[in-house]
Amino acid sequence: MKNAEIIAVGSEMLTPSRVDTNSLWLTDKLNNLGVEVVAKYVIGDDRARLAGTVSQSLMASDFVLISGGLGPTEDDVTRDAVALALGREQNFHAPISDAIEARFKKMNRVMPEINKRQAMVIAGAEILSNDRGTAPGQWIDVAGKIVIILPGPPHELKSMFERECQPRLEKLLPPVAIRTLQLRISGMSESELDQTISPIYKKYENPVTTVLAHNGDMQVHFRARCESVEAAEALLAEVDGQVEPLLGDRIYSRNGDTLEAVIGAKLLAKGQTLVVAESATGGGLAERITNTPGSSAYFVGGFVTYTRKMKTSFLGVPEELLAQYGAVSKETAQAMAEGARKATGADWALSITGNAGPTTDGEEAPVGTIYVALAGPDGTEFGHRVWAANDRLRVRAFAGQMALDMLNRKL
Amino acid sequence: MKNAEIIAVGSEMLTPSRVDTNSLWLTDKLNNLGVEVVAKYVIGDDRARLAGTVSQSLMASDFVLISGGLGPTEDDVTRDAVALALGREQNFHAPISDAIEARFKKMNRVMPEINKRQAMVIAGAEILSNDRGTAPGQWIDVAGKIVIILPGPPHELKSMFERECQPRLEKLLPPVAIRTLQLRISGMSESELDQTISPIYKKYENPVTTVLAHNGDMQVHFRARCESVEAAEALLAEVDGQVEPLLGDRIYSRNGDTLEAVIGAKLLAKGQTLVVAESATGGGLAERITNTPGSSAYFVGGFVTYTRKMKTSFLGVPEELLAQYGAVSKETAQAMAEGARKATGADWALSITGNAGPTTDGEEAPVGTIYVALAGPDGTEFGHRVWAANDRLRVRAFAGQMALDMLNRKL
Repeated sequence: MKNAEIIAVGSEMLTPSRVDTNSLWLTDKLNNLGVEVVAKYVIGDDRARLAGTVSQSLMASDFVLISGGLGPTEDDVTRDAVALALGREQNFHAPISDAIEARFKKMNRVMPEINKRQAMVIAGAEILSNDRGTAPGQWIDVAGKIVIILPGPPHELKSMFERECQPRLEKLLPPVAIRTLQLRISGMSESELDQTISPIYKKYENPVTTVLAHNGDMQVHFRARCESVEAAEALLAEVDGQVEPLLGDRIYSRNGDTLEAVIGAKLLAKGQTLVVAESATGGGLAERITNTPGSSAYFVGGFVTYTRKMKTSFLGVPEELLAQYGAVSKETAQAMAEGARKATGADWALSITGNAGPTTDGEEAPVGTIYVALAGPDGTEFGHRVWAANDRLRVRAFAGQMALDMLNRKL
Repeated sequence: MKNAEIIAVGSEMLTPSRVDTNSLWLTDKLNNLGVEVVAKYVIGDDRARLAGTVSQSLMASDFVLISGGLGPTEDDVTRDAVALALGREQNFHAPISDAIEARFKKMNRVMPEINKRQAMVIAGAEILSNDRGTAPGQWIDVAGKIVIILPGPPHELKSMFERECQPRLEKLLPPVAIRTLQLRISGMSESELDQTISPIYKKYENPVTTVLAHNGDMQVHFRARCESVEAAEALLAEVDGQVEPLLGDRIYSRNGDTLEAVIGAKLLAKGQTLVVAESATGGGLAERITNTPGSSAYFVGGFVTYTRKMKTSFLGVPEELLAQYGAVSKETAQAMAEGARKATGADWALSITGNAGPTTDGEEAPVGTIYVALAGPDGTEFGHRVWAANDRLRVRAFAGQMALDMLNRKL
């Protein structure tokens, strides 16, 4: 298997708030070509330091991809550093300069003299055209190993890689078939999920397994890399056959669809509608449902009832009930859901009440307490959890996930 | 100024979905000590490759921080790689082994023999205690340069760095005073903001300026690093004196408070309340307002009116008005805000109606159209924008920002 290293160039990438995302995208592309990424770097605008890194990477790996540092200023050191590392000259390439000049003219501007630096090409390099910006890339064969220079802005880099690099790499590399099985999972914790499936996936180096978790919503990706599509699909079917019985109905989608999209499709198919009434989640449940394009076909709307008066006036929650059980209670959740269903005529109503913290006003349930109710044609169901997490945003996100998971199972 | 390099170790950090966040946190800590980070690396579980990187970094910089690869298995190569790079022996340290064994016992488990590898210490190293996990760190003085080995899990790394490394680094480094001016800005685009203030901040290498933008909400951080607090504060005052007149009331906070928190504080001070009525943003506006702890003191609640019937039933929007102007119109926005205000008795009502896309149902305004209305004690004001961005989530986020910005200016 061939190896690659990825170098991001630019002192601005070394600040506490910046992440090199180009390397993540490139890693995915390279993995799909059967190339493993074995090291990544972020190097500041320092010619000698960058030249040293390029030399070392080129000794260790088959491909070295460098992004950024191709601008026109003195701070843009990539071309010079690579030329230095390879011990090669750079030559002025008039057609590049003309193209940059034309780009400036189109914007009614005159090309500054300094931009001519972007037309310098390392001896022996193939030029990679940039259809989104001024700086061209370069593809340099160094005794069978390849150095690839790409621009830093992600939209320029992606377009250049797909148009100019992908075809060249496919020619150099043995054909490979990649197939991915993507399971989305709800209703268990990340550690439960991992304990359940790790005995399976640890048996396999191929497919590669990735587990992603976000506030109770989880994804497992199995990526098989084989010589043929048939072999990759057979391998995934083999793994699926072992994982599926262990997860059962906790798998809510197999095509990347979100939980709210799966619910939406089920409601559409049944011609049914949904309303929500939320206090603790403050609109977050409605927002998540309406993230799905076309949700207006089944989502009636929502009530964010942050006061007792909102609950009594619009959802018909009796004042006595609130006084007796408190706003954070199973009884209030029930009254909210049934009230919202009645007030709007929707087929289903989901309600959430709870205390997301960070403090409680004394009369209320402890921080992290959530009650969910789902009112439907056959009555009302309930969910209840107390999360230990003293993190308002996480408690809110977990509560929304729990409510949607309940509705999805019911549908 | 002293330089540092940061190396993250672990093949799992070289997948398309993983980002090394430890280095961001460490960069912030190091910058605050007056140390500049000049290179970052992610290296797979490869002893020789890691040893080469450590050697190179140690030649180039004063501090080399390495995180991860301290587990008990053969894949955990950090200790061996650093020993190899420095040409030093490792010695078994019984007290570490005893402490790990005690940790296992506390969990009613027997320490596997393999965990003894975690008690190997490089000759001459100081041991950095781990109060959150089994693997200790190491602090190695190499002829005045320092190699620091830290565990990979962020909560272990952060605790160890703050307890064990920060005091050691403060002793080695000249005292430095850091002060930050943090402006939060709304009501202009990121490029407008940068064009406005870049002539100022480009004049200064100190303070360092960082501009962060997220869906129309922006932050500018100026970080001054001086020998005394007075000098740092004077420097920030000098920059502030030039930036403030250019931005004026587009600066909504100077202490890190979010726009919704600033609005909340103003409402609290006036003893006033707020209600929202939203369709295009689907609950997102209410969610954002309720992200602020304590928002129940001024936020009455919200209506997510995703159907015409929700608008007529609960907000009293006249059916004729909807028929004449359409749901996405200034008139509907006005009726929603005024209706919500009347129905709840809140002092202020914000409404948003629009089409976030990706498609339009023909009768509606084009994708990206947003109308905002703000109804208050003195009447109703309006906002209107058509965003070109064909990105549902972004249009929704921009619309919420616009609505909150309007309310904040009014308050």
